[in-house]
Parts: sequence; structure tokens; C-alpha cells
Amino acid sequence: MQKRTIEWRNGKVVTIDQTRLPHETVFLELESCDEVAEAIKTMKIRGAPLLGAAAAYALALTAYHLKAKKREELINELEKAAETIRKTRPTAVNLFWAIGRILAKAKNNPEDPKTLRIFVLQEAQKIANEDAAANHLIGKYGAVLINDGDVILTHCNAGALATVDYGTALGVIRVAWEQGKKIRVIATETRPKLQGARLTTYELKQSGIPVTLIVDSAVGYLMHKRLISKVIVGADRIVRDAVINKIGTFTIAILAKEHDVPFYVAAPKSTFDLAHTSKNVIIEERKPEEITHIGSQRIAPEGIEVFNPAFDITPLEYVTAIICESGILYKEDFSKLKASSGFK
Amino acid sequence: MQKRTIEWRNGKVVTIDQTRLPHETVFLELESCDEVAEAIKTMKIRGAPLLGAAAAYALALTAYHLKAKKREELINELEKAAETIRKTRPTAVNLFWAIGRILAKAKNNPEDPKTLRIFVLQEAQKIANEDAAANHLIGKYGAVLINDGDVILTHCNAGALATVDYGTALGVIRVAWEQGKKIRVIATETRPKLQGARLTTYELKQSGIPVTLIVDSAVGYLMHKRLISKVIVGADRIVRDAVINKIGTFTIAILAKEHDVPFYVAAPKSTFDLAHTSKNVIIEERKPEEITHIGSQRIAPEGIEVFNPAFDITPLEYVTAIICESGILYKEDFSKLKASSGFK
Repeated sequence: MQKRTIEWRNGKVVTIDQTRLPHETVFLELESCDEVAEAIKTMKIRGAPLLGAAAAYALALTAYHLKAKKREELINELEKAAETIRKTRPTAVNLFWAIGRILAKAKNNPEDPKTLRIFVLQEAQKIANEDAAANHLIGKYGAVLINDGDVILTHCNAGALATVDYGTALGVIRVAWEQGKKIRVIATETRPKLQGARLTTYELKQSGIPVTLIVDSAVGYLMHKRLISKVIVGADRIVRDAVINKIGTFTIAILAKEHDVPFYVAAPKSTFDLAHTSKNVIIEERKPEEITHIGSQRIAPEGIEVFNPAFDITPLEYVTAIICESGILYKEDFSKLKASSGFK
Repeated sequence: MQKRTIEWRNGKVVTIDQTRLPHETVFLELESCDEVAEAIKTMKIRGAPLLGAAAAYALALTAYHLKAKKREELINELEKAAETIRKTRPTAVNLFWAIGRILAKAKNNPEDPKTLRIFVLQEAQKIANEDAAANHLIGKYGAVLINDGDVILTHCNAGALATVDYGTALGVIRVAWEQGKKIRVIATETRPKLQGARLTTYELKQSGIPVTLIVDSAVGYLMHKRLISKVIVGADRIVRDAVINKIGTFTIAILAKEHDVPFYVAAPKSTFDLAHTSKNVIIEERKPEEITHIGSQRIAPEGIEVFNPAFDITPLEYVTAIICESGILYKEDFSKLKASSGFK
């Protein structure tokens, strides 16, 4: 029985195929770095914290299955695997962060290849364990921001499925719910890949937390009608000046500001990239077919030009607070993020 | 050869089935008021100005096919037909306006039933002709607001397909294009019914006007990147304090304000309802399946609660100018709208 969204099991990485949810629960057994890379590219694996764990496990698969005689050979193959994973998706920093940790672990330990293999796998497990623990802490810290009766808007999926376990934004919602606060969630469907309609509603329904699905463009109307008391979203990367998250996040942040609704970001520190600003971040553009087709069904005329950025940039001035495993960082503390030596 | 989106032809109303576009061009031949009502409910006919013409023609069908001996019988049947049409969709005012005009025409003329039938049909034709003419005027007036090089965002479909001919927001774009201005259009897909992805891209492609399709939630990102110079949308109803239009319009208006992008509304005066404010307007809520399914394909888990308002309310303070067939009404002139005796 799978307990986490991603697990290491006998030399395989087992994870749920997120493109098949909510209709089918299909587990993938990935045996190589290339298989993990393919699952990331096709978004069978998605969600910034989960991408971190998957990247770490991809390198662990490489180390585990390589019968390396020499230390250099192992390091070499890990470097190649790292490059394969780095090329999958450019925006979520967790992926690069996890690769960096695994490579550092391998390079900084002058052990024989056999021992190094174990070290690499242990480090990947540690990354996964830390993420699960971080989410529970994020939930605990964030829940103090939630009041009885709140209606909380969330965008995309920042739940257990986006992480190793429990979820970031949904982690906060879960803890508040478990504390007995009577809350309701509004989930945006999150075009084009419908992570809100498919995954967030699915997770919340499984947990018995009331959820209402809306189209992305209805957020303004709901705020106008005072139907939303708080917004909580996850993040793909937090840089010194901005939060990078699923396309549509910035739009919601502006709507929240206009209506004086608090806008919270919940993310583990593995998502923080304080060496950079938003200018340094590549916003992934995905293929037109994500918009022109739903499944195999074409919805737009043939030959239409499409612009499909997968993420957007929310300047920090729109963010009320960031919730991470170390606590809540309020607006007045954001200067700590801006000092690159800071929070992390 | 059909020249307009809706035409009267030998006792039938001929119109294009907008749910089948862009894949198939299917014409509907509607022979009764009930058939028109059904086509409106299922959005085979949609777009506020087109709904006005369709409502007028629905009453003309009733009058035309009724072999009424007495004047009272004709008026009675017209009243019943009016009630059937009024119950189809509550938000676009053009529908109620057109019914009012037809009923007044019938009631105010003490003619025999045979003559009245002709009067009713003539009035419906007049409504349709006026709409086509209004759109050309809207285009002419609005085009002065468009500069060479502009990138214009539009939402939903306010084109020829939403009107009897030519279009309101797209009418403005057409005239600017015909004047040789090098413009580009960004079309939002417009969930849940995808009028932008299906209809606006189709119309613009047919006219050779460059168009790029985006998801609704990408508007914030494009504005942040300064990729949009102007917004033009249509309207389903303009009341004394607000513009009621497709869900998502208000969100775009806030984004435009935040980024100092002009936000224009293009609509004929048949869309003006200056006797009311936004408090008096019923925002239609449509069935959950529009969001939980695409075609026959289910995308959200079963049993999920859905909120599906079809329109939203944009207070006039977010609107830069309203373009109608009488000219451009700038922000400083909106007080004329607020006086119920005013502009109309």
C-alpha cells in the first residue's frame, strides 16, 4: 500500500500517474533516470516539492543500477543523469536544488562506489522525508492564519500530490480542518492542465473537506461578492523579489489586493532561490496542444497561434505572508528574503 | 448563401449552430418560438445582440405561423411566446428589449391580425438591420481608439457570431485592421464554453487578422510583461453603475487597471438598461456539467460541488470608455448613464 506520492521500493521509484487522476489510480514503477525524466516532462509527476524528490530518486536509480567499479565512473554517470533531469522542466527550483544536494553528497564523500551508492540513496530518502516533515510543519504554522468559517481559495494543486506527502497549501487547510475549524475551499480548475479540477477536488473530497469548483476566470466575481476570505497557493520558486507559481497565480494576487483578501504562499524552503530574482527565472512555455486540445478532442481551429506559459511571476508586494517549515514570514520580514544571505 | 449570423427565410429563422463551430458549419432552420427558445438555452444561439434579434424573430415566427382570426388571439399568442423567450436566459438585456419592442409594435397598432403579422415581422427585420448597422458604426467610432502596433486583448466572443453581423468588439478590431493598422489580437479561451477558443479565433482567422490564443488565467502574466496595449470586450447588459459581461470580464478589468491598460466596452444601445443598477440584474448560473465535463468527457471527480456563474459585474470605474453606435462615451461622461433619463 502506497503511503506517499513517491516511494522507493526495491530499486524502483513508485509514484502515481497524475495525468490519469481522478478517473484511474495507476501507479508507475520507474526503473531509470530516463523514465523519471519522461514522467516529469509529461507531467505524470508534477508539483515543485515532488519534482525535488523525484529528481533525487532519479539520481538514486542511476547510482543503484550502475555496477560502477570506479568512483569516477559513478560521479560521471550521476552528472549525466543530473543533466537529463535538469532539461525536463526549467521553472521549479526544487528539482535543481535536489540534484545539487545529491551531487554534492556524492562528490564530497571519498568513498568507494558501493558505499557511495548507498549514500546517494540515503540522501534521496532524506530529501523525501524532509519534504514530508516540512509539509506537516507548514500545515501547523499556517493553520493559525485560518479562522473558523473561512472560505479559502486555492489555485492549481499544492496538495499531497504535489509533494511527497500531505501538501503545502492543502497541508495548511488540512491542519485547520483537523483542528475543527469549519472551513470551505474554492478550487480553481486551473487551465490548461486542470490540476485544480482533477487533483485538488479529488484530494479534498478524499479528506472530507468541502470544496467547490470554479473556472479560473470566476475568481474576480467571487471576490466582488465577498465569497472568499483568504487565498493560499503553493510555489514553484520563491526568488528575492517574487513568487513564481502556476499561471494564474499573479492574476489571483491582484484580485486579492484589490479586494483586501489576504494572499498566502505555502512552500518548503527547498522552493526558495534567494540567489536570484525573477529576472533570472525561465518561465516554461509548454506546447499549444495543452490549450487547443482536451484529451484527443480539438477545441480551437487548426493553425491557430497559441501562447502557453506554464507559470507567472507574483511580485512580493502582492504577498501577505509566506508559510514555510520554519514559520510564517510576514510582509515586514520579506527584506530577509531580499538579503541573499538571509532566511534560508 | 447566409450573409448574416441570423436571417429570416420563407417563414423560417436560419442561423448557425455555434456549439458545433469551429469544426462543423451547421445551419439551423427554426420554425417556431419553442425551437428558438431551445436553441438559446443550449447556446446554439448566443451573444447579447444576437439574442435580441433571435427573440424578435421568435415572436415573428409565432405571428407568421398563427392563422389568427382575431387581433386578441394574436396578441395573446405573442404574449405567451414572449414569456417562453424571457425564461430562456436572464442576463442579456437585448432579449427583453427586443421582446418589448415587438409587443409594443403589435399592441400599439389597431390593425387586423393579417396586417399585424406583417408589422411584427417588419419590426423583427428592423431590429436585425439596426443591429448590423450599429455594429458598423461601433467599429467606425471605436477604431479611432486603436493605434498601429496595438496588441488588443478580447474576452469571449463579441464578433459577428454574437451579433446579427460584423461584431461589436471585433467590429472595432475589423475596422482598425481595414484601415491598415498593424494590430494583433490576444483571445482568451473563455472557460467554460470556450467561445474565445472556438469562435473568436475562428472569426479572426477567417478575416486574416493575427490572433493568439491564451488561457483565461494568463492575462495577468501578459499584462505584467507589457504584452497587451488595450482591452476591448462586448457586454450583455450595461446598467447605470456597471457592465455585465461574460464571467472573467471583471477580472480582466482589474488587471487592466492595475497595469494602466485601457479597458473598452463595445456594445449597441440595445444592451443599455439605464433603468436599473447591477443590484437588479440576475447573474445566470449554468449547470455544473459545463465545468466538470468537456464534451462527453468528465474531467472532475463525481459528486463535486460546482459554482458556475455565466457573467460577472464590472463597476463603471474600471471602464475607460464605452463605444456604441452614437459614439464614444468616455469616463467623464458616465454620469450621463447614471441619469436614467440620459444617454439612451
